[in-house]
Amino acid sequence: MIGVLGGMGPLATADFFRKVISETPAKGDADHVPLLIQSDPRIAPRPAAIVGEGRSPLPELLAGRDRLIFAGAKALAMPCNTAHFWYADLLKGCSVPFLSIVEASVNELPLLADAGSTIGIIATRATLDAQIFDPALVRSGYTVLLPDENVMNTLVLPGIEFVKAGDPLRAGPLIEEAVQSLLNQGAHAVILACTETPLALDALNSRLRVHCVDSTAALAKCCVAWWQSNKARLSVHD
Amino acid sequence: MIGVLGGMGPLATADFFRKVISETPAKGDADHVPLLIQSDPRIAPRPAAIVGEGRSPLPELLAGRDRLIFAGAKALAMPCNTAHFWYADLLKGCSVPFLSIVEASVNELPLLADAGSTIGIIATRATLDAQIFDPALVRSGYTVLLPDENVMNTLVLPGIEFVKAGDPLRAGPLIEEAVQSLLNQGAHAVILACTETPLALDALNSRLRVHCVDSTAALAKCCVAWWQSNKARLSVHD
Repeated sequence: MIGVLGGMGPLATADFFRKVISETPAKGDADHVPLLIQSDPRIAPRPAAIVGEGRSPLPELLAGRDRLIFAGAKALAMPCNTAHFWYADLLKGCSVPFLSIVEASVNELPLLADAGSTIGIIATRATLDAQIFDPALVRSGYTVLLPDENVMNTLVLPGIEFVKAGDPLRAGPLIEEAVQSLLNQGAHAVILACTETPLALDALNSRLRVHCVDSTAALAKCCVAWWQSNKARLSVHD
Repeated sequence: MIGVLGGMGPLATADFFRKVISETPAKGDADHVPLLIQSDPRIAPRPAAIVGEGRSPLPELLAGRDRLIFAGAKALAMPCNTAHFWYADLLKGCSVPFLSIVEASVNELPLLADAGSTIGIIATRATLDAQIFDPALVRSGYTVLLPDENVMNTLVLPGIEFVKAGDPLRAGPLIEEAVQSLLNQGAHAVILACTETPLALDALNSRLRVHCVDSTAALAKCCVAWWQSNKARLSVHD
């Protein structure tokens, strides 16, 4: 089974679970990917820790990682972009593959944007400041475009908070306007690099989704592909 | 955290996860219920085993139960009504409370139906034949009304299969018609006693939901209540 280090936030983890199911070609129960999902919303807030204003979630993330591996996970995924700040730390001593949401998302870009084009990023301020996506994008030849301060403060951050408070519909117009502003400024595609934000656009059934890489769905597809490629070598109890 | 023995089927487990979140009064991540969800779709089919036509899922259910407890679950829930055929077996030697979907559902009935009234049940044939709900309903003074053979074969069972195949919208009209037929025959309320069936009515946003106990939501509420009552005595890592 694939272990899911989640709960940051819970609704985004539930969305990830749903997307693993919908991305799986299945006729019945038995075709689906076995998952072991930890949804622990008590993990220390990631944005505050990154800017040095709160305790680090790393010990809790490591404990979750080891709990999942000990319980039988043969690969891991973490449907939270901001928490990928600690991705390198989580890889250290990790005995199973840990699928990266950054890599999964960047790998989807060729479907939407030519090499060398400009890619917008919608994310928490911590994800942007810590440049969690930048190295992978630059390495693949893309130019990065970020929301300006006004868009962050009036649209992106309040939108993320509305989803975390259980109201994706209220978040929808905010995230949609933020995506539109990046497209207006020349982005050829936008990565929804915070797993709360696809919920906002999904709630509206927004027409802008076709210009976006949904990081939640990208990681879900990556998990399905990993399972399809590896299940033959795993035992029926794995 | 609460352990969830799921994957029977995966979409119903994802729906349960979503309903635990939506039933929780929360302003942000940290107010949510910590969950450890095993979604293992490889567990042997329950209906076939109950009628003696396939291997028993009990060894796999026990292994899942123990995996979740060993990984730290302080209570358990299983969002699959048919699997409650093995509920008494799962309680044996179980070191933590195991919340029953049957009890959670029957406890919701007073909101919809007077004592002594007639209650319809929509469920797999195995759940009906094994009378998983009957003792609790009769004990509470209700009269049980089941779908007839024609309704089972043309509406309920195909509807459940459509949800398991990932198409709740196609299941919607079938399950709605099955509920309506029970109401027409005198049921005062109907228990959606198969966790695939609320997905079917939700997909349609069916007006009949007001007459139904959603067993998935009932178990979700029961988990939220358990967590709210017990979290104070648990450690921050539980």
